[in-house]
Amino acid sequence: MSWQIEALKAKTILEASIPTQWLLPKDKLPPSDQKNVADFPRTSGLFTDRELSITDMSATALVKGMGAGLLSAEEVVIAFLKRAVLGHQLLNFATEFLAENAIARAKELDAHYKRTGKVVGPLHGVPISVKEHIGMKNRTCNAGYVAWVNDIAPEDALILQCLHKAGAIFHVRTNQPQSLMHICCTNNLTGTTTNPYNRALSPGGSSGGEGASMGFRCAPLGIGTDIGGSIRCPAAFCNAYGFRPTMRRNPTQGIKSPEPGQEAILGVVGPLAAQSLDDLELFQRAVLDASPWDSETSLVPLPWKRVEEKREFTVGIMWDDGIVRPHPPITRALELAKSKLQASGIKVIDWHPYNHAHGWDIISTLYFPDAAQSQKHLLSQSNEPILPLTSWAFGYSRATPLSVAEAWALNVSRDEYRDEYNALMKERGVDFILCPAYVGVAAVLGESQYWNYTAIWNVLDFPAVVFPTGMKVEDGDVQNGNEMGAWRARSEVEEREWRKWWVDPSRYLGAPVGMQVVGRHFKDEETLAAAKVVEEVVCGLEGERKRV
Amino acid sequence: MSWQIEALKAKTILEASIPTQWLLPKDKLPPSDQKNVADFPRTSGLFTDRELSITDMSATALVKGMGAGLLSAEEVVIAFLKRAVLGHQLLNFATEFLAENAIARAKELDAHYKRTGKVVGPLHGVPISVKEHIGMKNRTCNAGYVAWVNDIAPEDALILQCLHKAGAIFHVRTNQPQSLMHICCTNNLTGTTTNPYNRALSPGGSSGGEGASMGFRCAPLGIGTDIGGSIRCPAAFCNAYGFRPTMRRNPTQGIKSPEPGQEAILGVVGPLAAQSLDDLELFQRAVLDASPWDSETSLVPLPWKRVEEKREFTVGIMWDDGIVRPHPPITRALELAKSKLQASGIKVIDWHPYNHAHGWDIISTLYFPDAAQSQKHLLSQSNEPILPLTSWAFGYSRATPLSVAEAWALNVSRDEYRDEYNALMKERGVDFILCPAYVGVAAVLGESQYWNYTAIWNVLDFPAVVFPTGMKVEDGDVQNGNEMGAWRARSEVEEREWRKWWVDPSRYLGAPVGMQVVGRHFKDEETLAAAKVVEEVVCGLEGERKRV
Repeated sequence: MSWQIEALKAKTILEASIPTQWLLPKDKLPPSDQKNVADFPRTSGLFTDRELSITDMSATALVKGMGAGLLSAEEVVIAFLKRAVLGHQLLNFATEFLAENAIARAKELDAHYKRTGKVVGPLHGVPISVKEHIGMKNRTCNAGYVAWVNDIAPEDALILQCLHKAGAIFHVRTNQPQSLMHICCTNNLTGTTTNPYNRALSPGGSSGGEGASMGFRCAPLGIGTDIGGSIRCPAAFCNAYGFRPTMRRNPTQGIKSPEPGQEAILGVVGPLAAQSLDDLELFQRAVLDASPWDSETSLVPLPWKRVEEKREFTVGIMWDDGIVRPHPPITRALELAKSKLQASGIKVIDWHPYNHAHGWDIISTLYFPDAAQSQKHLLSQSNEPILPLTSWAFGYSRATPLSVAEAWALNVSRDEYRDEYNALMKERGVDFILCPAYVGVAAVLGESQYWNYTAIWNVLDFPAVVFPTGMKVEDGDVQNGNEMGAWRARSEVEEREWRKWWVDPSRYLGAPVGMQVVGRHFKDEETLAAAKVVEEVVCGLEGERKRV
Repeated sequence: MSWQIEALKAKTILEASIPTQWLLPKDKLPPSDQKNVADFPRTSGLFTDRELSITDMSATALVKGMGAGLLSAEEVVIAFLKRAVLGHQLLNFATEFLAENAIARAKELDAHYKRTGKVVGPLHGVPISVKEHIGMKNRTCNAGYVAWVNDIAPEDALILQCLHKAGAIFHVRTNQPQSLMHICCTNNLTGTTTNPYNRALSPGGSSGGEGASMGFRCAPLGIGTDIGGSIRCPAAFCNAYGFRPTMRRNPTQGIKSPEPGQEAILGVVGPLAAQSLDDLELFQRAVLDASPWDSETSLVPLPWKRVEEKREFTVGIMWDDGIVRPHPPITRALELAKSKLQASGIKVIDWHPYNHAHGWDIISTLYFPDAAQSQKHLLSQSNEPILPLTSWAFGYSRATPLSVAEAWALNVSRDEYRDEYNALMKERGVDFILCPAYVGVAAVLGESQYWNYTAIWNVLDFPAVVFPTGMKVEDGDVQNGNEMGAWRARSEVEEREWRKWWVDPSRYLGAPVGMQVVGRHFKDEETLAAAKVVEEVVCGLEGERKRV
């Protein structure tokens, strides 16, 4: 049996699931060489004003609207489904539509509201897109591997159970890369997902389908997973919001992974949002209010705290991680952020990174302690081709599995590094770090090779929030003089990453600029609250982006 | 260099540290064949009434006394030091006395109190004995290995820093077995510690020096560590209190172990107390009020909660773990507990253990994932003889190290087992489990081979409290008819363990009977509160034991 025949099953499931009534004939779609399609819903005339309004609303606003009887859950989910079908035609971001179930659930919610005058919970009627490897009862779950194309999830993942209880509706499942270890989104099952702001660019990864879903507003909220940047890069690449919580807060039961039991570095599950940081918090509170630790005992029983949005904190700006200097649009955005933060009275100092190369050595080894044998075995089971970015990721792996004693030594290094970094932040009086989410804006498809602006916070297990600055790469950025000048790369890695910008900056036209706010271990609530303040200062004054 | 010469260094440090002014001439000591020496301080005439009163007080009462100006920290620490020196002569429980520092610190505390009229913290002037492998700045730390006899700790362990800040005084360091993996207390450095209630019996282990310290009242509080029962068995064997908290609550920085970085099963550090459960809580609150997670980032930031001592809970009594039926004194104590609990209106049902053999398979493999190579390497470094109970423990190890993938599979089994056990308690409506702390009362020296009445709660990571029932093995227990009768052991293991009782019950004369109360993961505060209620019912009505 050839892998292609197996892989076709995933495509068949996807295609059979698309609600055809909302498919646009091919000749009405923008030409395939039109890169930026983010505005197509508005300019196409396909959507009513009400549908456009609905799909521009935050989850928070939608729940308010439904709670006030101004919106029905059914019309909301239909508007987003319609937009998602179009988004899929343009970006190939879905792996399965759940239209029938979603609409039925919306009708139930509407009936409940009609009967009681009340919403069922804090996410009443909110459509949420879900990364494919988060298991859904009685549906396939392949996690990007052809070998798993027939696997059926026995239960809904625990996080879905929590969100369902809060009233959420799951209307579409989304794409991920082979191995889940690309900051990009290509697999041998349903292909490549692209970026709504520039279809030659990556939507990020591994939650790339979620990035596209948020960027095109196919849902107000999405669920991704992150072990090295897989929530935050898609958010940054696609003009969206993303949150990587501290490990062992959100439930991971029922999420499929090729390394179950690997716990030296845990992937986390968390939200992406299309419209606002408030929605990330709404999501977190709904999940933790369900006390998931009561059944998934490896979680820490920490309810989501209410914290004040204070302005009395110190932000350390990290301009450069000491390894690869960010591309010019990122640095310019940080400069603008700095001046606005200072003008608003927030204390800002420079953050000098603490040995990020060491942090990367630790985490990149911990990604594949078994020399990626579990992943390679899975790939060989189906005989599917190993994609270039999969090979790239496997390149971080050592040639042979770690011994138990070597793994322990790495754990010790990891804990020491965490404690040292934590102590340094306290010593320098820095509460939060503002830094790039990636070395540049969205990578060109297939070129996302440098992970350490996000992965560093995974090895440290620091909560991290990404928000869009409202800035985009424009002609001005592209036409700037050659800033390379006398600059010389510190390493081959830096040379490689810089070349990606300078070879032709126009490749990035239209790409949004995101930013990352990072806090100390378990300071999830404080970090999200600080990110709101930073965002308000950086974006609010700019006036380019509203908070819905 | 022979291992004996190296080992002698530990003995030299110990002997040089003994405050000779309190040494009793050998001819005044009870004869070496006198087994029970627990009452010797009272009957010997060596202590003033005031000294006896002080050493009979709980930490809670001592702090109250010092806070009211009725006691000085100096007289308190001197009374306990005096008792500890005698205890050491009788039981060989110390590895190093810290008399000079302890008295100097007591004087500082007294001066502070004189100056301010206030205590420095909740443990003001409380003498605490400390298991040797908990590092003390600039002192040796051998963790029971001759190879480490020269190792110097660079800092005080974080838990000592927390306790010091709260006002505690460390006056004596205590013995532990070779490898830290015996429920007994013998090493090649300072020898064997014995049980104050019967010197032919073990004080338990691995915190055996702490067991003896509590049993002989050499300190109101002690610090032990526990990865399979090492706090709880010494407490149970020595008529004392012990608490095994959930992992990642108490700080472990600076505690020496041969497997740093091993985190599939973590040893925990926690208190033993001579007088009361309240003292265990006093200790826990003092440690967690110091926010140790602020520097040891692998800890969970959960402050010690205040919970009410309610009586509305259900206790499941576990009579038997399904593998080895407990010895008759234990069963009789449980029967008495059951009737008293029922009489007091507390809901009691039988707890049927859930696959404890499976739990043991998991944890016994996780003790030595590297096939005990790290331990064996340490032993071979000094060439010290491997003691019988060390070989016994190594017998649980597999012949070859686990591969990374095998270790992951075990982690998955462990988490599934935890979730299933947790779900079962919820399903059966059982809040707390009351069970033996060990298959019998204190083991005969060298015979403690069965760990699973305590280790099962380590694999489950459930908090567990041991308290003394006030009952002791008396002639009546010994003269009871042969209860074996038609009974047939279910296995060789059960046969082996039962034989230890029936071969000659009189071996256990004088041994106290402890009991264990267990709660769900992270329900530390609730479990300790429930244990107080259970203890009050089981012991208070009995009138045999006071709560000070």
